[in-house]
Amino acid sequence: MQSLRVNLGERSYPIHVGAGILEQAGELLRQAGLHGKAAIVTNPVVAQLYLDTVHDALSQAGFEVSPVLLPDGEEHKNLKSLATIYDCLIAGRLERTSCVLALGGGVVGDLAGLAAATYLRGVPYVQVPTTLLAQVDSSVGGKTGVNHEKGKNLIGAFCQPKLVLIDIAVLGSLPRRELIAGLAEVIKYGIIKDPALFSLLEQSVEKIIGLNHDLLTHIVATSCAIKARVVEADEREDDYRAVLNFGHTVGHAVEAATGYRQFLHGEAVGIGMVKAAALSVRQSVCDAASLKRVTALVERAGLPAEIPPGVSPKTLIQAMEIDKKVAGGKIKFVMCEGIGKTRFHWLTPEEILRGLGA
Amino acid sequence: MQSLRVNLGERSYPIHVGAGILEQAGELLRQAGLHGKAAIVTNPVVAQLYLDTVHDALSQAGFEVSPVLLPDGEEHKNLKSLATIYDCLIAGRLERTSCVLALGGGVVGDLAGLAAATYLRGVPYVQVPTTLLAQVDSSVGGKTGVNHEKGKNLIGAFCQPKLVLIDIAVLGSLPRRELIAGLAEVIKYGIIKDPALFSLLEQSVEKIIGLNHDLLTHIVATSCAIKARVVEADEREDDYRAVLNFGHTVGHAVEAATGYRQFLHGEAVGIGMVKAAALSVRQSVCDAASLKRVTALVERAGLPAEIPPGVSPKTLIQAMEIDKKVAGGKIKFVMCEGIGKTRFHWLTPEEILRGLGA
Repeated sequence: MQSLRVNLGERSYPIHVGAGILEQAGELLRQAGLHGKAAIVTNPVVAQLYLDTVHDALSQAGFEVSPVLLPDGEEHKNLKSLATIYDCLIAGRLERTSCVLALGGGVVGDLAGLAAATYLRGVPYVQVPTTLLAQVDSSVGGKTGVNHEKGKNLIGAFCQPKLVLIDIAVLGSLPRRELIAGLAEVIKYGIIKDPALFSLLEQSVEKIIGLNHDLLTHIVATSCAIKARVVEADEREDDYRAVLNFGHTVGHAVEAATGYRQFLHGEAVGIGMVKAAALSVRQSVCDAASLKRVTALVERAGLPAEIPPGVSPKTLIQAMEIDKKVAGGKIKFVMCEGIGKTRFHWLTPEEILRGLGA
Repeated sequence: MQSLRVNLGERSYPIHVGAGILEQAGELLRQAGLHGKAAIVTNPVVAQLYLDTVHDALSQAGFEVSPVLLPDGEEHKNLKSLATIYDCLIAGRLERTSCVLALGGGVVGDLAGLAAATYLRGVPYVQVPTTLLAQVDSSVGGKTGVNHEKGKNLIGAFCQPKLVLIDIAVLGSLPRRELIAGLAEVIKYGIIKDPALFSLLEQSVEKIIGLNHDLLTHIVATSCAIKARVVEADEREDDYRAVLNFGHTVGHAVEAATGYRQFLHGEAVGIGMVKAAALSVRQSVCDAASLKRVTALVERAGLPAEIPPGVSPKTLIQAMEIDKKVAGGKIKFVMCEGIGKTRFHWLTPEEILRGLGA
């Protein structure tokens, strides 16, 4: 087990990464100072695989456990599911010192986090992410939220968890396509911050997809550490935290332009990273060799690297215009300066598309 | 105009108190660093009286204003009204730097505050309370929330406003009964913290009810300053902030036992304060003369001082048992040690009722 810490003053918390951590959940929660009642928020798919394990671990450590089952899927990340969680927390008579545990992917984590942030004006919560994407991204950093019919994550809160428990053994039950999509965010950390992580991925991407536990533990812990350092520098995304959006401007636009049906989030980020690197080369910020490495790694991981021909530049521009990060018509676009370094350029959607030769 | 400051590090903010402040709202918002779009959340009753004034003041200062009208009444302080605010903020395309202004009593303030705390993961908000109760209590301190059918304020957030604007001229349009109910909280501040404030109320309660502007400005600013000092000491009510609950344990129980229909909140607090003082005397914490002064002032203000005969001790006990502040079956009861000083006693609901001779 590897342990690291997100340092945010009185909101600091540990992250534990390793195989078989679910079984130790009760003990680890107690070590984090939690006790009493605990609600486990999850969905039926994850519940079937892991709810008993976590429920038993918590019960054995003396917790009084209430499971809360939400329907699976991004379309249920809304105010209705949030109200369902509130109803269950109230029915279970959870108190101010009780805790909420999110067992699942990003949807469960974002929903349970927001519920915990607002139930009785805030109770502690624990992230137990079960997808690679959630393990390296959404479970760390305290962004919680739900979607509105007009846009994603329009309602939410910054609220840090008390603890993050990452069991990489659960990745064995994750569909291969989702595992690979999660890898896109790991590649991103390499590009924005860590040439050694990037090189390791170049050497071992097949072994990682083959679920080598040591490699998975290492890349997940390294990714969390990078995200932790970024969040420590800028918790509420006033400025620097936007570096985490590398590959996401074009990625989000591709997702939106294809109606969120054709690509998983990580797949769209694969395309977005290659395009961001290409734009960086065109703007003479990045060398051509680095672009080649980014493209090659994305493709070797099995991620898409090209915008599908059916998507028109006009649709992409429209999608970028409603991006939350637009200010005064310009987008804070994250460029890479080779592998391991970035800079921001303020560009209009048209400038971005033109730079891509689209 | 009197100005004071709530000192909470980077969450600090000013409170301005005086007559005619609504007209200066635009200028004061700009001084607080706000600009761009502003949503004014209010209800039809308040809107008819003051929306034009505030709308004009903000427009003249360069704000792009969207009014958000909510139905009036505590029964609308729920997730449905919260969703209405989100819809309006999104329709008005409010951005992260836009602000939400709560123009109304405690219901509007709590709803608008929670919406601002969670829209785009938090946008700045301004409290412009239009009832005496909201001016001296809910507008200061950052408690926001909505009710759930199972209990009051079960969902919410601690989120401090950027600015509080208190125009005491608006109290001229407040029903006399509501003005007097608000006075209960002012009396409370005298009892828990400020013998001089208590004496001033003894001297001048009739003039205050007669809407003397200088006296109103003074007692409102003094009340806000006391609340600010308490909140500074314990922002999230981990411990000391509970002192503000003086008179509220029995008060809340009386409100609940009478179905929230017979008494306004402040009226129930009037009864609760007299009973808390009586219990303090019985437990030899308080002298009989102070009890006499508390009872006399509550009665002179026109507030009720007795639990109505129809309310059974059993109903009161049941109401106390579901109080949010219960821990291990005991309630953190606020005793007074004469005028201006308090202490906490942990008591069961039965002990409280027995102490009252009920």
